[in-house]
Amino acid sequence: MTKAPETERETQRIEAFSDGVFAIVVTLLIFNVKLPEPAAVTANGLLAELAKSWTIYLAFAASFFFVLVMWINHHRLFTIIRRADNNLMLLNGLLLFGVTVVPFPTSIVAAYLLDPQQQAAVFIYNGWFFLVAIMFQLLWRYAAHNNRLFSHAVDPAITRHIARSYNIGLVLYLAAVLIDIISPPVSLAISIGLAVFFAIPNRQVQQLMTTSDTTA
Amino acid sequence: MTKAPETERETQRIEAFSDGVFAIVVTLLIFNVKLPEPAAVTANGLLAELAKSWTIYLAFAASFFFVLVMWINHHRLFTIIRRADNNLMLLNGLLLFGVTVVPFPTSIVAAYLLDPQQQAAVFIYNGWFFLVAIMFQLLWRYAAHNNRLFSHAVDPAITRHIARSYNIGLVLYLAAVLIDIISPPVSLAISIGLAVFFAIPNRQVQQLMTTSDTTA
Amino acid sequence: MTKAPETERETQRIEAFSDGVFAIVVTLLIFNVKLPEPAAVTANGLLAELAKSWTIYLAFAASFFFVLVMWINHHRLFTIIRRADNNLMLLNGLLLFGVTVVPFPTSIVAAYLLDPQQQAAVFIYNGWFFLVAIMFQLLWRYAAHNNRLFSHAVDPAITRHIARSYNIGLVLYLAAVLIDIISPPVSLAISIGLAVFFAIPNRQVQQLMTTSDTTA
Amino acid sequence: MTKAPETERETQRIEAFSDGVFAIVVTLLIFNVKLPEPAAVTANGLLAELAKSWTIYLAFAASFFFVLVMWINHHRLFTIIRRADNNLMLLNGLLLFGVTVVPFPTSIVAAYLLDPQQQAAVFIYNGWFFLVAIMFQLLWRYAAHNNRLFSHAVDPAITRHIARSYNIGLVLYLAAVLIDIISPPVSLAISIGLAVFFAIPNRQVQQLMTTSDTTA
Repeated sequence: MTKAPETERETQRIEAFSDGVFAIVVTLLIFNVKLPEPAAVTANGLLAELAKSWTIYLAFAASFFFVLVMWINHHRLFTIIRRADNNLMLLNGLLLFGVTVVPFPTSIVAAYLLDPQQQAAVFIYNGWFFLVAIMFQLLWRYAAHNNRLFSHAVDPAITRHIARSYNIGLVLYLAAVLIDIISPPVSLAISIGLAVFFAIPNRQVQQLMTTSDTTA
Repeated sequence: MTKAPETERETQRIEAFSDGVFAIVVTLLIFNVKLPEPAAVTANGLLAELAKSWTIYLAFAASFFFVLVMWINHHRLFTIIRRADNNLMLLNGLLLFGVTVVPFPTSIVAAYLLDPQQQAAVFIYNGWFFLVAIMFQLLWRYAAHNNRLFSHAVDPAITRHIARSYNIGLVLYLAAVLIDIISPPVSLAISIGLAVFFAIPNRQVQQLMTTSDTTA
Repeated sequence: MTKAPETERETQRIEAFSDGVFAIVVTLLIFNVKLPEPAAVTANGLLAELAKSWTIYLAFAASFFFVLVMWINHHRLFTIIRRADNNLMLLNGLLLFGVTVVPFPTSIVAAYLLDPQQQAAVFIYNGWFFLVAIMFQLLWRYAAHNNRLFSHAVDPAITRHIARSYNIGLVLYLAAVLIDIISPPVSLAISIGLAVFFAIPNRQVQQLMTTSDTTA
Repeated sequence: MTKAPETERETQRIEAFSDGVFAIVVTLLIFNVKLPEPAAVTANGLLAELAKSWTIYLAFAASFFFVLVMWINHHRLFTIIRRADNNLMLLNGLLLFGVTVVPFPTSIVAAYLLDPQQQAAVFIYNGWFFLVAIMFQLLWRYAAHNNRLFSHAVDPAITRHIARSYNIGLVLYLAAVLIDIISPPVSLAISIGLAVFFAIPNRQVQQLMTTSDTTA
């Protein structure tokens, strides 16, 4: 009886630390968006020069929503995780490592999207997202293995659904990386689409969660 | 009975994440304030050179209080929101997107306030604040629709008052954007005035909240 | 009975937001410490070039402990504040404004401490600390006025002691600003000494607090 | 009875502030990783230029995991600390000072790892880690002295184990600093290895903690 609140506080502090990291990454992304050159602004006007930087805004927005969706999923995952152990802290730390790096590939794709280096830039961008998806998968698999760290009330149907949706995500991020060989713009469009897809609430999972909540 | 605390924890984690984002944005604004050029300091003295940068300080202070007021309002809103769903998380994420962008139009208005590009700079600055006000409106409307996510104790008179004050804000930000066509300085003064207006406590709402609190 | 926890949660969220701002300011200070010029490093060696930047380290450390002490005092203040109202949020917001600006005068004093502009630089640095001390005083006075926002258990002897120590601080920061006219290094030494003075626990206050805690 | 929750809230706010600082440091490290020069990218290709910066990535990753491990250990320490006093806040503040500085030696080692200044750069990097380990040791010793700030339930066997592992860490960081005289790469390898060593869960401590938890 005394153990339960203690371990719950444990997972809460991991959540709080992770929330901090997600919140900071999401907020720092804008600092890769630089003002246009003063000389160019004088020549062409401010609005025209800002409009030219649309690749930077696109990369910024795409990364913002990628990290936001990562946070929403991390958040959902921790609503069913009830216990923490050292391995969970390390795998979570690995995921946070992946997330803190995101501003770097973002600045690469922002700088080289309209450049001959486009293919390499999109490869690094989507390749990193694929690695982050793998890190998320590792965290999930470790926690989910035999319901290791879940509360007993978690319906196995939920974990099956979540597992399936994460697997699909992993395959699609890999597809985005591979399609970059043929068409970098399509590759980028896929990874932006994936953020949208994962942001949309999965009705089935929500229903299952509500049900198991009521019966808990 | 078991559901209530669970969903309350849910909104608390959204609040914590949002608080993190607001706190970081508010703190990072100062990093757009750069030191004056060493050569100019040697020629004219440090204080004289710093004084020349008053547009930067004005833009910094205006944005600080805009984001602070956004936080206070976000905070007030979540004191009456009692449940979270996925759409709330997304609309909240959209608002946070708007807030994290604020340092960028701030640096634009700081750089071009005394420049021929003044009108365009103020347009971007106030235009973005108008967009953020719309994002806030969306979040509010979604939560308020049929008291969807509110606790049952919320007095309809409160929600009517809040809705009215948000509508006024939206119209006034739009007015600020339009007035920029005639006079950029007046436009900027309006948007600074709005931050002050929204910071001042609405006596009627506070009274109503205290009443409903006591009767809850 | 229902009101107490609600308002307590209110002050807790203000504390959390403020903690975030303090934590970010304290962490960002290091980003004003720049690497030495590569050419100078090649000529003179890395350690020699780093040693030349001692004014930057001094300014960094002084500001770090100034903000840390501000946080400790803010923290202490909120252990006796039990209710929040809108004015408290605004005065707290004003204090946070003062705190987020700190990296800017820090970079000024770091850049101009060994320069003919030394006096102006120290004036801005200590002048800003004096303004922040005034903001803290405003927050304190508002909350302390007739024990407005304190829990009833707070011993008046504690508030008298705190008030006295804050008044002393204010006078000494003003003294530091004035002494800059005669000797900038002495002025700087005083403001560094003040951070140390406020960091040291006030035995009398602690004793009084422990007593009132036990009798609460 | 009334005191316990009060002081527990006290340690929780210190933890929250510290978590914020750790989370921000860990997230800001990536901002030392700069894009390669556009001219070099045009000449050699993006991937080739990025690959050349491997020392930057190594320094970034090593510092990330150093700070993460510091956070995990800080976290573990505070699970057994039950009371806070002013000295604890100051010693904790000193540790946070050490942690916020980490991005600076990281950027030094990233810039000079393949340079004639390699030895000095690794000395600063590992030397700083050694100082941070001393700060951690001070915090630990103060809290552990006669179980000063621990809950009574803490098994002395746990504190003995933790103390031993911290002492080993301190000696090994010192060894890393000294070995830099002979071989900077070996010195760097040791400090990276130490982060791994401290990340791995200490089975004995975990077992003891679980036992004392159950009997608490």
